[in-house]
Amino acid sequence: MSEFRQNIATKEWVVIAPERAKRPEDLVKKTEEKKELPDRVDKCPFCIGNESMTPTPNFTVSNNGQWRTRVVPNKFSALQPVLSPNRKKTGEFLKAEGYGIAEVVIETPKHNKSIAAMEIDEVIDVVITYKNRYMEISKNEKIDLITIFRNHGVKAGTSLEHPHSQIIATPITPPNIRQQVSQARLSYDTFGTCIYCDMIKEEIAQKDRVVIESEYFLVYEPFASRSPFETRIIPKRHKSSFGNISDEEIENFSRVLRIILRKIYKGLNDPDYNYIIRSAPVEESNVKYYHWYVVIIPKITIPAGFEIGTGIFINVIPPENCTKYLKEVKE
Amino acid sequence: MSEFRQNIATKEWVVIAPERAKRPEDLVKKTEEKKELPDRVDKCPFCIGNESMTPTPNFTVSNNGQWRTRVVPNKFSALQPVLSPNRKKTGEFLKAEGYGIAEVVIETPKHNKSIAAMEIDEVIDVVITYKNRYMEISKNEKIDLITIFRNHGVKAGTSLEHPHSQIIATPITPPNIRQQVSQARLSYDTFGTCIYCDMIKEEIAQKDRVVIESEYFLVYEPFASRSPFETRIIPKRHKSSFGNISDEEIENFSRVLRIILRKIYKGLNDPDYNYIIRSAPVEESNVKYYHWYVVIIPKITIPAGFEIGTGIFINVIPPENCTKYLKEVKE
Repeated sequence: MSEFRQNIATKEWVVIAPERAKRPEDLVKKTEEKKELPDRVDKCPFCIGNESMTPTPNFTVSNNGQWRTRVVPNKFSALQPVLSPNRKKTGEFLKAEGYGIAEVVIETPKHNKSIAAMEIDEVIDVVITYKNRYMEISKNEKIDLITIFRNHGVKAGTSLEHPHSQIIATPITPPNIRQQVSQARLSYDTFGTCIYCDMIKEEIAQKDRVVIESEYFLVYEPFASRSPFETRIIPKRHKSSFGNISDEEIENFSRVLRIILRKIYKGLNDPDYNYIIRSAPVEESNVKYYHWYVVIIPKITIPAGFEIGTGIFINVIPPENCTKYLKEVKE
Repeated sequence: MSEFRQNIATKEWVVIAPERAKRPEDLVKKTEEKKELPDRVDKCPFCIGNESMTPTPNFTVSNNGQWRTRVVPNKFSALQPVLSPNRKKTGEFLKAEGYGIAEVVIETPKHNKSIAAMEIDEVIDVVITYKNRYMEISKNEKIDLITIFRNHGVKAGTSLEHPHSQIIATPITPPNIRQQVSQARLSYDTFGTCIYCDMIKEEIAQKDRVVIESEYFLVYEPFASRSPFETRIIPKRHKSSFGNISDEEIENFSRVLRIILRKIYKGLNDPDYNYIIRSAPVEESNVKYYHWYVVIIPKITIPAGFEIGTGIFINVIPPENCTKYLKEVKE
C-alpha cells in the first residue's frame, strides 16, 4: 500500500509507492560499456600541467610542492563579483545585475579520481578546502547565502569529467530557503528544540533508515525521501552552518562521505548524482533553530508533471529498502 | 551581462545568463531519425478497439457512437480512492495512506495525434473533458487540490506514447502551493489587487515577452522564466480556479493551447515537455487573490546542484529571445 509521508522539518509531503515497485536492483545503471578514464587529459583545464588554463587560484592545498586541491574563480559562471547586487525596478518587475561569487573546487590533479576512488587523506583535503572557502567568502558583506555542491555526470548537469565541486555565493536568500529556515524557527519557538536534532533522534530510534552512524554524523535515507537513494549526512552535534565544522568533525565527515559515495558508486554502478551542502544563510551561522546537512541525490528517476506542479514527489522505492540495499554493499 | 530577475508573485529569483548563451536554435532537439508513429497500436491500452484493457470510464465525449476522449481511473497510480486520508503518527513522524484520485485522460482514439496535431474541435473536447472531471472531483469533500498535467515524452517522465493527460487529486495541499497562495493573498491584502492580474498588465505593457494575446488569454514567456521556453497561458479575466473556465473561454483557451503547442512542436522539433494547469486549492476556487494558469516546460535543460539546492534557476536564454523565436515559427 502506498503512503504519504511528511518531512517534519519542511512540512513537505512525499508519496512512497512501493506497489509500483521496483526493487533497488532495478534502478542500477545499465553499463553501456563503461568508459575507463585516463588519469590525465591534455585538453582538460583542471589536469596537472594545465594550470595556466585556469585563473589564479584563491586557495590551494599542496604537499611537497605538488597541489592536491585548487580553487579557481569560475570564469564561465552566470554570477560574477564585478557586478552590483543592487535591485532595480523595470516597470513593475524587479531585477539586479548578476552579482555573486562562483568558484570551482578542483578536487584532485587526477582526471579519473572521483571522491569514491580517493584515499581518506585526499577527501579530507577536499573538505578542508570547502571549509576554508566557505569561511573566506562569508566575510564578504554582500553575500547572504553560500552553496557548495557537486554535479557528477551529464544527467546531473555537468559535462566536465575532471572531479570538481562548485561554490556559488549569492547576495540573495531565495524564498524556499527562507521558508525552510522559518519553518525550523517556528518549530524551535514552539518546542524549544531544533527540529533537525529531533529528526536525528527519531531516525536513530527507528533504525531502519540509518546507513551509517559514526561518532559525529548520521548517514540515512530520510523517512520522507523524495526519490530512491536520496541520502542525507547530518552532524549529530547541533550546528547551523557547515562553516563551523570542527577539525575532528572534518575527519569524521570525510570518512562517512567517502564510504557512502563508494557504496553508491558500487551499489548503483556509478550513477550520476548531485550533492549539496545546505547551511543556514550567512547571518544565521550560529542559530539554535537550523542545522546544516548534505543531501545526495542520485539521478535515477525523473520528476514529472505531478512533482513539478505540486512539489509532492512520488518515490517508487521505500527508503527502508534503499537502506538495506546500501548497507549490504561492501565499501 | 547576466541578471537576477524576480517573479513578483512568488518572490522567487532566477538568473538570466545570456553570456553563456546559446541561441534558441542551439536548443532545438537533434533529430535522431524521427520515428513516425502509426495511428493504432495493437498492444496500446488507449487505442481504439482496446477499450476492455482499461477500467470503466468516468467520462466520455462521443460523436456518432464513436468516442473522442475517455477518462479512466489510473489503476497503476500511487494514489487510490479506496484508502483513507487520515494522518497517523509513526513515532515522531507523520504519514497517511495513499488516498487520492488519479485519472488518465485519453485525449484521442488515435495513437499518433498529440494536441499539436489535432483539429481545434478535438482540442476543445480535451479541455471540456478536463473541466468536467475537475468539477466532478471537486465535489469530493476529502479532496483539497486537483492537478491536471501532461507528460509528453520520456524526459518528461512518461513511457506511454498514446496522447494522454493525467489528473491527480490529493487530500493534501502541499506547502509550496500554500506558500504561493499565501504570498498572493498578502499582496492582495497590501495592494487590493490580484498580483497575477498585475503581472498580466505589466507583461502586456512591456510587450517583448508576449507570444500570443487573444481575446481571453495571454500566452507569454515570463520575465523570470526558470528555463528556456518556459511558457505560461493565463486567463485575462480574474478567476482563481480552472474549474470556473467559461464556455467562450474554453474555445479561446483551446485555440491558444493548440497554437503554442504547434509552435513548440515545430520550432523545437517536438521536444519532451510537461504542462501543468495550476488552480487554487478547491476551497479557494472563488477568491480574489489567486489566479489559475498553465505552465508549459519543455525539457531542454537540466537543473543541477545549484538549482536543486537554492531554487534559483539559471536560465541560459532570455525569455525575450524565446518569444521572438516562437513568434516567428509558423503555426
